[in-house]
Amino acid sequence: MSSPSISAQRYADRLERARQQLPGEDAAALLVGVGADLEWLIGYSAMPLERLTMLVLPAQGRTTLVVPRLEVAAARASAGVAAGLVELAAWEETDDPFALVNRLLQDSKSRPEIQLGALGGTWGRLGGLLVSDQLWATFLFRLQVALPEADFGLASSVLAPLRAVKDAEEVELLRQAAHAADRTVQAIAAGRLCGRSERDVAREVRERLVEEGHQEAAFAIVASGPNSASPHHEASDRRIEAGEPVVLDIGGRLGGYVSDTTRTLWIGGPESVAPTDEFGRLYKVLQAAQAEATRAVRPDVPCASIDAVARRSIGEEGYGAHFIHRTGHGIGLQTHEEPYLVEGNEEPLQRGHAFSIEPGIYLEGRYGARIEDIVVCTAEGADVLNGSPRDLLVVNG
Amino acid sequence: MSSPSISAQRYADRLERARQQLPGEDAAALLVGVGADLEWLIGYSAMPLERLTMLVLPAQGRTTLVVPRLEVAAARASAGVAAGLVELAAWEETDDPFALVNRLLQDSKSRPEIQLGALGGTWGRLGGLLVSDQLWATFLFRLQVALPEADFGLASSVLAPLRAVKDAEEVELLRQAAHAADRTVQAIAAGRLCGRSERDVAREVRERLVEEGHQEAAFAIVASGPNSASPHHEASDRRIEAGEPVVLDIGGRLGGYVSDTTRTLWIGGPESVAPTDEFGRLYKVLQAAQAEATRAVRPDVPCASIDAVARRSIGEEGYGAHFIHRTGHGIGLQTHEEPYLVEGNEEPLQRGHAFSIEPGIYLEGRYGARIEDIVVCTAEGADVLNGSPRDLLVVNG
Repeated sequence: MSSPSISAQRYADRLERARQQLPGEDAAALLVGVGADLEWLIGYSAMPLERLTMLVLPAQGRTTLVVPRLEVAAARASAGVAAGLVELAAWEETDDPFALVNRLLQDSKSRPEIQLGALGGTWGRLGGLLVSDQLWATFLFRLQVALPEADFGLASSVLAPLRAVKDAEEVELLRQAAHAADRTVQAIAAGRLCGRSERDVAREVRERLVEEGHQEAAFAIVASGPNSASPHHEASDRRIEAGEPVVLDIGGRLGGYVSDTTRTLWIGGPESVAPTDEFGRLYKVLQAAQAEATRAVRPDVPCASIDAVARRSIGEEGYGAHFIHRTGHGIGLQTHEEPYLVEGNEEPLQRGHAFSIEPGIYLEGRYGARIEDIVVCTAEGADVLNGSPRDLLVVNG
Repeated sequence: MSSPSISAQRYADRLERARQQLPGEDAAALLVGVGADLEWLIGYSAMPLERLTMLVLPAQGRTTLVVPRLEVAAARASAGVAAGLVELAAWEETDDPFALVNRLLQDSKSRPEIQLGALGGTWGRLGGLLVSDQLWATFLFRLQVALPEADFGLASSVLAPLRAVKDAEEVELLRQAAHAADRTVQAIAAGRLCGRSERDVAREVRERLVEEGHQEAAFAIVASGPNSASPHHEASDRRIEAGEPVVLDIGGRLGGYVSDTTRTLWIGGPESVAPTDEFGRLYKVLQAAQAEATRAVRPDVPCASIDAVARRSIGEEGYGAHFIHRTGHGIGLQTHEEPYLVEGNEEPLQRGHAFSIEPGIYLEGRYGARIEDIVVCTAEGADVLNGSPRDLLVVNG
C-alpha cells in the first residue's frame, strides 16, 4: 500500500484559506517559521536551526519563503515551492534575514491594491503580524527590533482552527500511521517481555515502528510495575516482572502524520500469573470510561464534555483523584495540537477533528493503566482509527 | 568503554555561575524552557510540548523547576532535581503555569536579602527576565501577559558564553561521539555504494550511528553527483553512480552530546573509475584550506579569522564564489551553538571552545565537496576529535 501524499491543490487551498482569515484577525501578515505550521502550509519540513527560515504570507500580495542560501535546493523541492505557490528569497551567510522580512512586508504594503498609506501606514495601526506559535524567542525578539511599529500575535489564531479539521488525505495518513502502530503493539504483546528491560522493549518498539512504515519513531513509553503509575515515564533499565502491568504508549510519524496509541499489558510470565482482582477492576473501570468517552463524540459537542464523560465515569468508581491528566489532545502533523479535550475548553467538536481519547488511572508507587485511541469526529460519531484490542492484553512470556 | 556522565557537582557549578552573571546583565532571573539550556543547567531532557516546563533561576533565592504534574516523576529523575539543586513546583492540568512562574518570581523578590522594595519593586526597574533563546513564542507572549512590568531579553547573553566553554567531561563525550561517527563513515566508505539509492545509504548510516553507541541518529546527508553541490541536501531516491562524488555529512547524539562530521567519497564503482583531474584539484584545494584553518586555531584568535583563513585559501585558487557558507559552528548539546566561525564574529576563541571546521566548494549543477572535523581549542592549538582519513576516499564498489 503506497502512502497518499498531500496534493499541490491542497496547499494552494490552505494558503488561500489562511490568507482570507487575516483581515478578520486584524492582521497584516503571517510570519511562519520552521515547524508544523510551515509543513501544513507548503509541505516544507526543515530542521529547526539558528538560521532563519520564514514564510511571509501577507494579507495581499505575493507569498515568499525566506531561506538561507544553503537551504535553497531543499526548499525548492518542497511541494509549495515546486508548485509555484510560493516564491523563494534566499539570504547569504552575512545578510540580515530580518531586514529581508521587513522589506518583503513593506513591498506588500506598497502594492496599490492594499493602500496602507490611507490607513496610516504602520503595522501597528494596520493590525498585527502573527508569528507561528513555536517560533523561537531569539527570532521573535529580532523581528520586534526590525519591525518596531508592529503588534505581534500568534498565528494559531488563524492556523490552529484550520489545521484542526483534517481533510480526507490527512485522515488517510493518520489511519495508516495508526494501523502501523497497532501492528507494533500487537507484535510486542506477542512477547516475550518478562525479564527484559524496559529500555530493550522500547528499542524493539522503535525498530518495529520504522519497519511498519514510520519515517521516524518519536516516542516509546514502556512503563512497568510501579513505573506504570507515571504517565510520561521514560523507558529505564528496570526489568519487567511477572504479575505486573506494562503501559505501552508509542508513536511516530508516517507521511508526516503522527501515530499515538496506548495499550496496557498484564505480564503473566512463564507461570501465567493472572491479573490481581484489584488491577482487573481498575482496568474494567478504565476501559468502560474510554468507551463511553468515545461514544460521546459527535459534532457540536464541546471538547470539555468528552473529558467530563470520562472523568465522571472514573469518578463514580472511586478513582477520580487518580485520573490526573486531560482526556485527550488533537493530533496531525504534531503529536499534540488543537483541539484539547480538557476541562474548560468549550470549543465544539467539528467533523474532521482528529484527537486522542486516553483516560488513565494511576496509583502512585503501585501501578497504573491507560488506553488510548486516535479518533476522527464524523457526522455519525467517532471514526476510531486504532484497531488493536482494548481488553487487558495478558502476555504469558 | 562506558560513557562518562556529567557529575552533580558540575550542575551545581553551572547553576551558580549562571546566577552570578545575572547582576551584570541587569537581570532578575533566568526563565529556561525545554531544550539544551535546561539540559546544560540541570541535566533534564524533556520533550518540547505545549505544557509549560520552566526553570526559574532568580538572582537570589531558590531555583525552581515548574513542571506539569504528569512530568513530575521524569523531572525528579533528572540530575539537578535528584541532587537537590532545584525544587519542583508541579502544576495541575487546569492550573495556570504562568501565574505560578509569576508567584515564584514575586516570592524571590520578597525575600529580605533582596529588598527589591527599595529599588522600586517592579521587574522593569530591577532589570530583565531572560528567557531561553528557543522558548516558543506562545510561551513568551503568555509570560509577557502574566508579567506586564518585566523587560524580557534572551538567556543566551548569560548562558551561551558559559555553554561554549566545554569542561573535561563534555570534551570526552564529544570525543566519543566523534569516534562513533568516524567508525560509521569508515564502514560506509568500505562500500558497496555504487547502484544504491542515497536513501538506502542514509538508512544504513542511521543504523550504524546507533549501533556505534549514539542514542539518536539526528541527520544523514548523502549527496551524490550533482546533489553534492547542495550543502544541506536531503537523501533522495537518486542512485549513486560510478565516476561521481558523494558527500556524507552525518551526526547524532551520544550521552547528550552531538557528533557532526563530513567526508567526501569518490565512487570508483566496480570498474574503478579514477577521480577526474578537475575534481581531484578541487578536492586538494579544499583539503589544504581545511588543514590551514585547523592549524590557525589557538586561544585569543577571533572566530572570524579562522573563517578568513579558509576563505582566503580557497579564494586564491579561484573557488571563492563557490564556498557559500561559514567555516564552522560551535557544538555541544546542540548541533549548532556558539561560537560561530563566520565573517563579522570578532569573539576570540577560548580554551574549551568546541566547533566544526568545515569548508566546502560547490559547483552548482555539477558537484561539490566538504570536509568537516570537530575540534576543541586548547592552549596548544586545535585538538581534532575526528580521526577518519581526510584524503579523498575512493570507493571501488
